[in-house]
Amino acid sequence: MSKIEEFRQIIEDQIRMLERPTRPEGLYDPVKYVLSLGAKRLRPALCLTSAALFGDFSAAVFPAIGLEVFHNFTLLHDDIMDQSLVRRNQPTVHEKWDSNTAILSGDVMLIKAYELMAKSPVGVLPQVLEVFSKTATEVCEGQQFDMDFEKTTDVTEDGYLDMIRLKTAVLLGASMKIGGILGGGSLRDCSLLYKFGQDIGMAFQLQDDWLDVYGDQESFGKRIGNDILTNKKTFLLITALNRLESEPKKELLDWLERKEYLAEDKIAAVTRLFNEAGISEITQKKRDDFFFRAIENLEKVGGNKEIRIELQTFAHELMARAR
Amino acid sequence: MSKIEEFRQIIEDQIRMLERPTRPEGLYDPVKYVLSLGAKRLRPALCLTSAALFGDFSAAVFPAIGLEVFHNFTLLHDDIMDQSLVRRNQPTVHEKWDSNTAILSGDVMLIKAYELMAKSPVGVLPQVLEVFSKTATEVCEGQQFDMDFEKTTDVTEDGYLDMIRLKTAVLLGASMKIGGILGGGSLRDCSLLYKFGQDIGMAFQLQDDWLDVYGDQESFGKRIGNDILTNKKTFLLITALNRLESEPKKELLDWLERKEYLAEDKIAAVTRLFNEAGISEITQKKRDDFFFRAIENLEKVGGNKEIRIELQTFAHELMARAR
Repeated sequence: MSKIEEFRQIIEDQIRMLERPTRPEGLYDPVKYVLSLGAKRLRPALCLTSAALFGDFSAAVFPAIGLEVFHNFTLLHDDIMDQSLVRRNQPTVHEKWDSNTAILSGDVMLIKAYELMAKSPVGVLPQVLEVFSKTATEVCEGQQFDMDFEKTTDVTEDGYLDMIRLKTAVLLGASMKIGGILGGGSLRDCSLLYKFGQDIGMAFQLQDDWLDVYGDQESFGKRIGNDILTNKKTFLLITALNRLESEPKKELLDWLERKEYLAEDKIAAVTRLFNEAGISEITQKKRDDFFFRAIENLEKVGGNKEIRIELQTFAHELMARAR
Repeated sequence: MSKIEEFRQIIEDQIRMLERPTRPEGLYDPVKYVLSLGAKRLRPALCLTSAALFGDFSAAVFPAIGLEVFHNFTLLHDDIMDQSLVRRNQPTVHEKWDSNTAILSGDVMLIKAYELMAKSPVGVLPQVLEVFSKTATEVCEGQQFDMDFEKTTDVTEDGYLDMIRLKTAVLLGASMKIGGILGGGSLRDCSLLYKFGQDIGMAFQLQDDWLDVYGDQESFGKRIGNDILTNKKTFLLITALNRLESEPKKELLDWLERKEYLAEDKIAAVTRLFNEAGISEITQKKRDDFFFRAIENLEKVGGNKEIRIELQTFAHELMARAR
């Protein structure tokens, strides 16, 4: 078993053992529910791995769980705002209970996340809290930009990249940086880990966008073309809107507005327009830029070499997913 | 000008100078809006006053603002859950914008509150965070109990008192305790300040419930009988439901269910039933128990005597409001 796998297990066990009040049930049942749905525990596992690079990871265990609780808080509130019905193949909290329950349970999870962060050794506590609060604020900003973008077709590629950086990538960077701080890494190493985590997050999100259109149906978990059918503002769609000439751009906008169509027709037409603008190659290039920059930064990180190689392997596996 | 008044002014100025990002506007405009609506700044003023009891209050300024930001975050989210249209004579955030905006802006305010708390001197930071997180959690629990209670007529007096303690009183206690910690007060003094703040909060809430029925229309800000008309679960209603005999209890329940009536008839009938059960006296007795216990505990607090007397005067003024 790899170190990362081992750390995932530790987190899973610790989350189950987390002392949690039971009353009022309306507040705490949803928290239990959302934390028990099978999750990858990616952020806390990366946090512990980063700590272990420099020595003892034990000081990072509670803050790592705090990162997972925070991540799940964002999913809970985002799902209300996006009116999502399903998360991890189960009904979302606002579906299973109601919106009020999802708001308040989410609030108490954000508080719990800070409570766990505050278990950091006092010598590094201000530093950990600073990274965490900055990141948490950015994640909210990213969600706001995402909602703003859904209301317009006028989004730049850089605007989109900045949105996914805020909404997704910074938390991966912060998870690794906080792990590094708690493990006793140098300022330079912690900063490199942050960059690695953030860039891997960017590459992963671009890969996710790309797979929706160009992935292999069998190995890809979700239905191919789903983002196209829901008009989701992905890097592909935004790049196409920015780069297509006026005629094909008009055709693309028509497809976005059309209410009645066969699913396969819309997927085929939009994919053809993407192909015309070379969107697949542009996206892959962008993804690879982030990925290789991430690997370059990782190679500069000090600490235990074996664990660093594990992180590298992990990054490659993450990108190879469903390709 | 009293010290408390002076501290209110300091908080008001500092809040205005608070560095606040502007983009995305959809996230930060509501935060600015809600923090600029005229508020009493009661919690931060009590926090600074508590700090000043023991010496220099300057370390408490940012955490005090954190308490005010936290309080406003709870109002923002509570107003969504309670579907309130107006707050401080202005439209609520979810009314002026929408629910999603109110959820996300509230989230970023809770993060900001922690960011301000984290500016406490590192020597007392873990202690401040522990009080704050415990209290923030309790406030969420109080809101959940409040929502639960609105769905049932089966609430005990102790259950109601515990709900208002969690929802309202603990934050006043915590504001004073955190101030005490940051001012350098002893453990014993900080604990006494907490009890004082909490009990004053309880007395104030009971007074608020009582005034709705027995207050003087001219001096009371709100309309007399408003809680009766909206079937609000106040201490008066809950005590009446628990203490009335079967016949008058049935009459009270009938009034709660009735859809068509003249406002003055319902107010008169329910007030008569309250009078039958001696609810006014019971409520005043309960209120005074909390109030006098608060004053007793305040008298045991060390530190600057003049400031302690100011706190005592303030407590009396708070209770004399609109009587």
